Amino acid sequence: MSLIVVGSMAFDAIETPFGKSDKIVGGAATYIAWSASNFTKPIKQISVVGGDFPQEELDALTKRGVDMEGVQIKKDEKSFFWSGKYHLDMNTRDTLETQLNVLGTFEPVVPESFQGAEFLMLGNLAPAVQLSVIAQLKQRPKLIVLDTMNFWMEIALLELQEVISKVDVLMVNDSEARQLSGEYSLVKAAKKILSTGPKYLIIKKGEHGALLFHKNQVFYAPALPLEDVFDPTGAGDTFAGGFIGHIARTKDISFENMKTAIIVGSAMASYCVEKFGAARLREITKDDIDARVEEFVQLVNFDIALTN
Amino acid sequence: MSLIVVGSMAFDAIETPFGKSDKIVGGAATYIAWSASNFTKPIKQISVVGGDFPQEELDALTKRGVDMEGVQIKKDEKSFFWSGKYHLDMNTRDTLETQLNVLGTFEPVVPESFQGAEFLMLGNLAPAVQLSVIAQLKQRPKLIVLDTMNFWMEIALLELQEVISKVDVLMVNDSEARQLSGEYSLVKAAKKILSTGPKYLIIKKGEHGALLFHKNQVFYAPALPLEDVFDPTGAGDTFAGGFIGHIARTKDISFENMKTAIIVGSAMASYCVEKFGAARLREITKDDIDARVEEFVQLVNFDIALTN
Repeated sequence: MSLIVVGSMAFDAIETPFGKSDKIVGGAATYIAWSASNFTKPIKQISVVGGDFPQEELDALTKRGVDMEGVQIKKDEKSFFWSGKYHLDMNTRDTLETQLNVLGTFEPVVPESFQGAEFLMLGNLAPAVQLSVIAQLKQRPKLIVLDTMNFWMEIALLELQEVISKVDVLMVNDSEARQLSGEYSLVKAAKKILSTGPKYLIIKKGEHGALLFHKNQVFYAPALPLEDVFDPTGAGDTFAGGFIGHIARTKDISFENMKTAIIVGSAMASYCVEKFGAARLREITKDDIDARVEEFVQLVNFDIALTN
Repeated sequence: MSLIVVGSMAFDAIETPFGKSDKIVGGAATYIAWSASNFTKPIKQISVVGGDFPQEELDALTKRGVDMEGVQIKKDEKSFFWSGKYHLDMNTRDTLETQLNVLGTFEPVVPESFQGAEFLMLGNLAPAVQLSVIAQLKQRPKLIVLDTMNFWMEIALLELQEVISKVDVLMVNDSEARQLSGEYSLVKAAKKILSTGPKYLIIKKGEHGALLFHKNQVFYAPALPLEDVFDPTGAGDTFAGGFIGHIARTKDISFENMKTAIIVGSAMASYCVEKFGAARLREITKDDIDARVEEFVQLVNFDIALTN
């Protein structure tokens, strides 16, 4: 059983209505690894960092069972950097600065020891990089999950559509699903997107939860109503990590199990937003996760017998 | 067992991105009665209409077990009229025209035969009218439910707060909960609002479902993802009607049963939006309602055993 994770490992500087972070460690693959490593080992990480990326961060992930053989360290270059500012609703944000740095020329190399992995999580990254990883795998994983964002729809739509056509599960947010499909209704958007390749579509709606579409079936996972959302950065990646981590642990790629995986991902994301960056993800235990999943059960549970 | 419904019975003219209605029958109490009459009889209606209100509409409701003794008919005046235009997202709308007409001078009179009702549904209306009805009841109902809107927060806040302090369940939408509490976080908003009187707060989030808050408990009911939302007018009233109809039928005012009532209300609302006005509500049968409730069960059902 193994899981390959592809994505950025990087620095972020974040402003929210509640505060401002220094330059802290972030990146899709970082959040995914912190999240998924609660459920499955080893995680085979594919990414690129500069000489400025802290060794202790790599060590901390290694300790959690994340195999760094696929992480290129370019000593003389700088890591990817993003800074952004969230609006009051925390669902929208402005990018203040983007420095591509090592990501600008990233050519992923899949180590031989990563071949034969059963699960592939393509975190948010250039579609060309995602395609290259898929092409390098000698055996198609049992399940390929793709997370992406509007940025790639704007600058690399054709490549993105090619990746989408090759994956089993696509994750986007609601406005991205609308942008990708040209349909306002999410049900219509889902139908169109599912006709282009993926068997499953997950539409993330932030504080409004997430929808899973498969054929004519749909599942609605709530988000936990939170008193404070401190920093939403990485929540989507953390969700993806919990989702694929649960799938990799159970090795069950049925629609039924994907519903549960979405609840697990939602529980992980609800922890992520409690502190800046991945700080909260570094603290939580299996008991914390179990307790949060149980909160989701209580949140949606109702006695249908009462309707009769 | 009996239920009093208070609210407007009126005319609406509606524009949506999908079409434009003529002047059609609407009003909070109309939608509530069409919805609740699927579950409980008799419904004791308190409202006011002008001589222009169609007798066949009153007759159709009477046939469904709605007692019209509390509906004043002012032959020489005109019914309340509202016209509005929905934006593409169908969650927001502009009011084009409001003619208060008979509503402007409405003084509700609770008929003697309505006394002793167990349930009171205060549909959206001037807080002064709602207060008058409460004051006229010799025995406090077992459960009082209040639906209101931002309009009254702006022009009659003190009276509205007085009504709120006297009810058991308050229903508002998310932006109204924020406006009423001054809190952006809905969890914080709920805490504040619950401290002012109601034991239960339902926050309606349109296509994102509804939240039920009670003490430290919370329940999240999804909305059914719909391919087309044709006309959202009356959806909130229809939700309220399904909610109170289910409660009145089961006579169970526990938190557990309120969750189920919210699912029933959501199912009713999902039908309401399929056609202009209350047209769809006039067509549906018990089988339709059962089938829709079952869709909600499927929509949120997941196997938590899979997480262990």
